[in-house]
Amino acid sequence: MTDKKTIIVFSGDMDKVMASLIIANGAAAMGNEVTMFFTFWGLNTLRKAKKIKVKKDFMERLFGWMMPRGAEKLGLSKMNFGGMGTAMMKNIMKKKNVSSLPELIESAQMMGVRMIACTMSMDVMGIKEEELIEGIELAGVASYLGEADEANVNLFI
Amino acid sequence: MTDKKTIIVFSGDMDKVMASLIIANGAAAMGNEVTMFFTFWGLNTLRKAKKIKVKKDFMERLFGWMMPRGAEKLGLSKMNFGGMGTAMMKNIMKKKNVSSLPELIESAQMMGVRMIACTMSMDVMGIKEEELIEGIELAGVASYLGEADEANVNLFI
Amino acid sequence: MTDKKTIIVFSGDMDKVMASLIIANGAAAMGNEVTMFFTFWGLNTLRKAKKIKVKKDFMERLFGWMMPRGAEKLGLSKMNFGGMGTAMMKNIMKKKNVSSLPELIESAQMMGVRMIACTMSMDVMGIKEEELIEGIELAGVASYLGEADEANVNLFI
Repeated sequence: MTDKKTIIVFSGDMDKVMASLIIANGAAAMGNEVTMFFTFWGLNTLRKAKKIKVKKDFMERLFGWMMPRGAEKLGLSKMNFGGMGTAMMKNIMKKKNVSSLPELIESAQMMGVRMIACTMSMDVMGIKEEELIEGIELAGVASYLGEADEANVNLFI
Repeated sequence: MTDKKTIIVFSGDMDKVMASLIIANGAAAMGNEVTMFFTFWGLNTLRKAKKIKVKKDFMERLFGWMMPRGAEKLGLSKMNFGGMGTAMMKNIMKKKNVSSLPELIESAQMMGVRMIACTMSMDVMGIKEEELIEGIELAGVASYLGEADEANVNLFI
Repeated sequence: MTDKKTIIVFSGDMDKVMASLIIANGAAAMGNEVTMFFTFWGLNTLRKAKKIKVKKDFMERLFGWMMPRGAEKLGLSKMNFGGMGTAMMKNIMKKKNVSSLPELIESAQMMGVRMIACTMSMDVMGIKEEELIEGIELAGVASYLGEADEANVNLFI
């Protein structure tokens, strides 16, 4: 019997998303089933880096334009300093051999971590399925609660 | 046997409070007992919209005046832009038929979600019982821990 | 059989760290084993107040200089107002007989709450063991997951 873990990734801050992915990768490496639910600002983590042509209304277009497009673009929750702090942090991480967010996402997916985008948040923020990276499932809160009921660790990040 | 869930609502940001209420409503709809503990900034969610006459010292009055009075007044954690971002978000939510915070609170209460205001936070922030909406219980950390011990999902938001 | 609790303290905000310590103290007082994992900004909570002479490269020195040195220096997540809001909050807490962060840390340690500093975060942020207060263990994510597996309440703050 394997243990299950769920993580709601609400935050779109680089540091918090990194924490969620390090926990997810660690748990998967230890043989756990892990499900990550990306909701609200966390959804930006799953956006493709390049602009995808999709039909959007004005507000959806505006939101999409204002929010970071993909894990590479997320900024620190503190000491971002217009991106300079984040750039510094990435540099340090590289020097210290800490994986980048895209690398952590890739390794998580390779180890079978399920990544779910919250459909209600996608609807509210106007993010379309075609704009998400490969391998992402879509689901809602009931699906999250079903997973959480079977898990022994459930975090909200 | 029903499952139990607890959520600590520490944040007073509209988006995070919304996430907590959507999870609480979802869990209650699935037959779970849900207890929400509102503490610190999260307490503002439970304030009545209109000013209530209560005895306060100078600092309590100042804090009360600076913090949002009720769920309707909470702002987004990101892209608030002096309230414009929050107004935009509310507009979009209305258009997409997503319930507002006051509606989510009402439906949660109707489904039996227990809402508890943290007495220590009320004391520190100078918020009086008369200033809270109807149906709120008052309790402390021991009460939270008792509930959490019986629950299978415990989140801090 | 005692219950176990784990808390990841990711935040370095005075109010959030206070919430984590109040929960930890409460749980310990009720006979629970509690483990707190301080990671990222949360690490600053564990720094000694005085400058410690250690070998650091330029970036580590810069980070160390920009981040708050110890629990006494942490600021509020909201209404900090350049430190004025935090000073006001500390004043109120004193008047209402709420323990300060250093006092909460001390009582937690006296009741046997384990405090663990995340080694990966220490490496990334350039914080050395000598800079941490007494009684702190060092460990990584695997150690956290091992503890969380045995606990019935796991929070991320």
